[in-house]
Amino acid sequence: MNYRKAKKEDMSAVHHLVQVLADYEKEGDAVNVDPKYYERCFEEKVFQVIVAEDQERIVGMVLYYMNFSTWKGKMMYLEDFVVLPEYRNQGVGSKLWEMWLKDSKAQGAKMVKWQVLDWNAEAIKFYERQGATIEKQWWNGKIIF
Amino acid sequence: MNYRKAKKEDMSAVHHLVQVLADYEKEGDAVNVDPKYYERCFEEKVFQVIVAEDQERIVGMVLYYMNFSTWKGKMMYLEDFVVLPEYRNQGVGSKLWEMWLKDSKAQGAKMVKWQVLDWNAEAIKFYERQGATIEKQWWNGKIIF
Repeated sequence: MNYRKAKKEDMSAVHHLVQVLADYEKEGDAVNVDPKYYERCFEEKVFQVIVAEDQERIVGMVLYYMNFSTWKGKMMYLEDFVVLPEYRNQGVGSKLWEMWLKDSKAQGAKMVKWQVLDWNAEAIKFYERQGATIEKQWWNGKIIF
Repeated sequence: MNYRKAKKEDMSAVHHLVQVLADYEKEGDAVNVDPKYYERCFEEKVFQVIVAEDQERIVGMVLYYMNFSTWKGKMMYLEDFVVLPEYRNQGVGSKLWEMWLKDSKAQGAKMVKWQVLDWNAEAIKFYERQGATIEKQWWNGKIIF
């Protein structure tokens, strides 16, 4: 398995990974943006990606970007953390996680942040093993244009 | 009241606003970064700010930055929304909110997002009046370095 920062040319594989997982979750129609859009945003540095590659096939990734806490300073936000089902439980997720933490520190983040669904006990267990704090008192607000 | 995008020179006033509110909430020691740090991050475009100014005094602000949803695309995240207590209930918050939505659209955001504490009924009512969806099923994970 090869781990590296993604390039613009990887965006259609990254998008494919997102689509495969959305289909798997029976949410295939929820992906409203296409690979070209990913490429444009990637070039604008809206987000960064580390990929896991098995013989040139991208089978996992972490997608993240820098946020800012007015109290704590720079914090890296993990938006998406995907490993294809057939590649799970082989250490791919742990390695991606570790590389993401390392890259976040290198970019000056003072903390890292992400979200997890309340029913996702397996993921929560993983995060707690990593020494994470899980906060339950924040609700998300959103408006879709 | 004058509303405008902040400049680097406003960062110490922005930091002061954050500190005043933290003191008000008896969390004065929780602000771990200083105005110089704000200036550096502002210059790196880690965040943007719109300020409300009363006779050259900054009395309110929205602080935000672009995030990315793999399903929906660019989304603007509202990190901090502050109006000094003595300037509340005069439409300052609504105007800042409106300018933030407008600027988010202008920058290509397909949605806007923020968080609110579950006990903050007043804020939640404000957001619901704005047509927001409030999601309760996401928990926050974080690791402080």
